[in-house]
Amino acid sequence: MSLVVIGTVAFDAIETPFGKTDKIVGGAATYASLAASYFYKKTKIVAVVGDDFHQEDIADFGKHGIDVEGLQIKEGEKSFFWAGKYHNDMNSRDTLITELNVLADFDPIIPESYQDCEFLMLGNLTPQIQQTVIKRLKNRPKLIVMDTMNFWMDIAMDDLLETIKMVDVLTINDAEARQLSGEYSLVKAANKILTMGPKYLIIKKGEHGALLFHEEKIFSAPALPLADVFDPTGAGDTFAGGFIGYMAQVGTINFNNMKNAIIFGSALASFCVEKFGTEKIKNLTQAEVASRVQEFVSLSSFTIEN
Amino acid sequence: MSLVVIGTVAFDAIETPFGKTDKIVGGAATYASLAASYFYKKTKIVAVVGDDFHQEDIADFGKHGIDVEGLQIKEGEKSFFWAGKYHNDMNSRDTLITELNVLADFDPIIPESYQDCEFLMLGNLTPQIQQTVIKRLKNRPKLIVMDTMNFWMDIAMDDLLETIKMVDVLTINDAEARQLSGEYSLVKAANKILTMGPKYLIIKKGEHGALLFHEEKIFSAPALPLADVFDPTGAGDTFAGGFIGYMAQVGTINFNNMKNAIIFGSALASFCVEKFGTEKIKNLTQAEVASRVQEFVSLSSFTIEN
Repeated sequence: MSLVVIGTVAFDAIETPFGKTDKIVGGAATYASLAASYFYKKTKIVAVVGDDFHQEDIADFGKHGIDVEGLQIKEGEKSFFWAGKYHNDMNSRDTLITELNVLADFDPIIPESYQDCEFLMLGNLTPQIQQTVIKRLKNRPKLIVMDTMNFWMDIAMDDLLETIKMVDVLTINDAEARQLSGEYSLVKAANKILTMGPKYLIIKKGEHGALLFHEEKIFSAPALPLADVFDPTGAGDTFAGGFIGYMAQVGTINFNNMKNAIIFGSALASFCVEKFGTEKIKNLTQAEVASRVQEFVSLSSFTIEN
Repeated sequence: MSLVVIGTVAFDAIETPFGKTDKIVGGAATYASLAASYFYKKTKIVAVVGDDFHQEDIADFGKHGIDVEGLQIKEGEKSFFWAGKYHNDMNSRDTLITELNVLADFDPIIPESYQDCEFLMLGNLTPQIQQTVIKRLKNRPKLIVMDTMNFWMDIAMDDLLETIKMVDVLTINDAEARQLSGEYSLVKAANKILTMGPKYLIIKKGEHGALLFHEEKIFSAPALPLADVFDPTGAGDTFAGGFIGYMAQVGTINFNNMKNAIIFGSALASFCVEKFGTEKIKNLTQAEVASRVQEFVSLSSFTIEN
């Protein structure tokens, strides 16, 4: 039994109103697997990097107990690189550089030792590669969570719709839910998306929290109000990784466990934005995580007598 | 002991993507007092109308047990009139007509029978009139809640700051909190505003719920996700009225009671937007209100074991 995370492992160069970085380690699979590792020890990644990726960066995964057998290292090639600059409100950003490099012809290899996968996190990537991973697993995982973005809706909607059919949980933001469904109301959007395949839909609303939809049920999770958002990069991936890591830990798939998983994912994401890149989520203690989760409890709890 | 609500009682003409109305009864004091009346029976209004205001509309207040002794009726003058049109997303609107009429020289008269006021709701009006009402009460109420808007920040900031100093709870939206404080982060904005006088700050975020700030504590309340928002007019006033009505009912001012008051206010506001004007909130049963409050409970509750 294991949790497999597929996605990018990459270099990012980030500029925010608070500062800028050189190339630092990023990528959806990096954030998601680090987040998941706080809740579930058998986390394994499928990704590709070039030989510019440093051994110590790969060793960082090992320190978190993350299996990297599925991480391909392409000799003589370069890793995926993204550079972006956030605006003052931190809610919008410009992409300055996107170099696909090794990602251009990424063919995900699933090691034999990964075939015990029960929980599959499809980090943001082309829907076709996400689908390939599902097909290369001999047994259908117990839970498949898929993250995606508007970019794939713009250029690969057919592939996206095919892949969405095969997953249990879809995580997208509010604008993407509207784009995918053609509905402005998030309730109507969710009802439509829940007919496209996923049994659960998570709509991420950034500083406004997240909504979980399942059948007729809705759960509204708060976001932790923060004095400073230092760097939002990877927050969505961290959320998704924390979410599926918690689900893998508890093992039973139901609405109540998913509600908690959203709180744990949100807690991890709230750490992520406090420093550049993975700096914060690489170095958390279980006590820090538990204490942050308790902040979410007090933030949103109230008692009304019937 | 009573709850006094001051604000506009007026005519609105509303156009939304779902239809349009002729002149219908609106105004901050109308929405707020109707909402409050579901929780507290001794609700009294201070407002002014012209002789174009119909006796049956005044009788509607009476049906809800709302005292109208402080409602001045100006012979030969016309009531305040606002006409607006909502855009397709229902989050923004254009004002088509604003006729101040009787509001232009409104001098709020506090009947002697209102001097038992313990809970004071200052609905959205010029800050100077709001302040006059506080000064005309012989005893300082136990709780003063003030609603205001960006318009007064633009044209009467000094008056606004003077009035804010005198109140316990300020309710504004997120854009207004940013404008008032000059801070983008809502946490920083709240910390600054809490030094300006109010001990409690409620930031209304519409479809994203509301935040309550007090000392170091924060409460995040969800909004009920709705398939259709029919007409948002008066939702903020209804929220504020439900909030203070619940506080008057429980009587004790503390953070926990305020959390519940926000849920009750949000429940009333979620009804308000389901029909044009006051149509829905004029005709609710206590059972409907209780059941809607339970929807908020299930929407936001989760159980994490320590």
